Amino acid sequence: MARDTTTPAPVELLVCVTCRAGQPTDAEGPRPGARLHDALGALDWPDNVTLRPVECLSNCDQGCSLVLRGGAARWTYVYGNFTGAEDAALVHDGAVKYAATDTGLVPWRERSTHFRKNCIARIPPLETPND
Amino acid sequence: MARDTTTPAPVELLVCVTCRAGQPTDAEGPRPGARLHDALGALDWPDNVTLRPVECLSNCDQGCSLVLRGGAARWTYVYGNFTGAEDAALVHDGAVKYAATDTGLVPWRERSTHFRKNCIARIPPLETPND
Repeated sequence: MARDTTTPAPVELLVCVTCRAGQPTDAEGPRPGARLHDALGALDWPDNVTLRPVECLSNCDQGCSLVLRGGAARWTYVYGNFTGAEDAALVHDGAVKYAATDTGLVPWRERSTHFRKNCIARIPPLETPND
Repeated sequence: MARDTTTPAPVELLVCVTCRAGQPTDAEGPRPGARLHDALGALDWPDNVTLRPVECLSNCDQGCSLVLRGGAARWTYVYGNFTGAEDAALVHDGAVKYAATDTGLVPWRERSTHFRKNCIARIPPLETPND
């Protein structure tokens, strides 16, 4: 949990761009997941965060979905139930806080309500399986 | 997807041992997740598979839960809705098939019904974000 003055390890924010977020398959226009990805791309990010589009995180029942990961010392998180571009600021907030940690563990009180309630799964770091 | 004659990279099977699988909090005895872990530990495993207990994968609504991961070239999978020790053979089957691949992508027709229907999320490999 320690935060020091060095830049924490690089972080990837993976956004499923194929997600329909429950829309019918014949809906026209960009999918909600793609719109969320594009809206995130228009924001300013810390130097250690890379935004990447991915195809299907297999969390389709609770999409839009994203993953935060970054290095062997961090927990990986899967978050879901985003609705599209309108959630960009919410995602930005959570990702920036995650990227500022060394372990990926953002204090509970600092997490948004959405992040608290829509964690689909978390995966221990490679270096330390349990904190 | 290529399978060659070399041994695929090491795989970790992470089993949440704190999972109650819906049991009341005052239930006595080992938790279902711990019982599943212990039953898995009694089975024979390929040399490249390591079973590890972990505490809470934050998939409590759909536990018991486990993670399969293994190296930068493999997809990581979260599976859920196991009930306890009685699912050990089912988990063994899926994990052995996963460990035999280079990418973590087990052909659909080879996956058990449980694995097909209870994938909580999957996370792309570090090396290649999309297949």
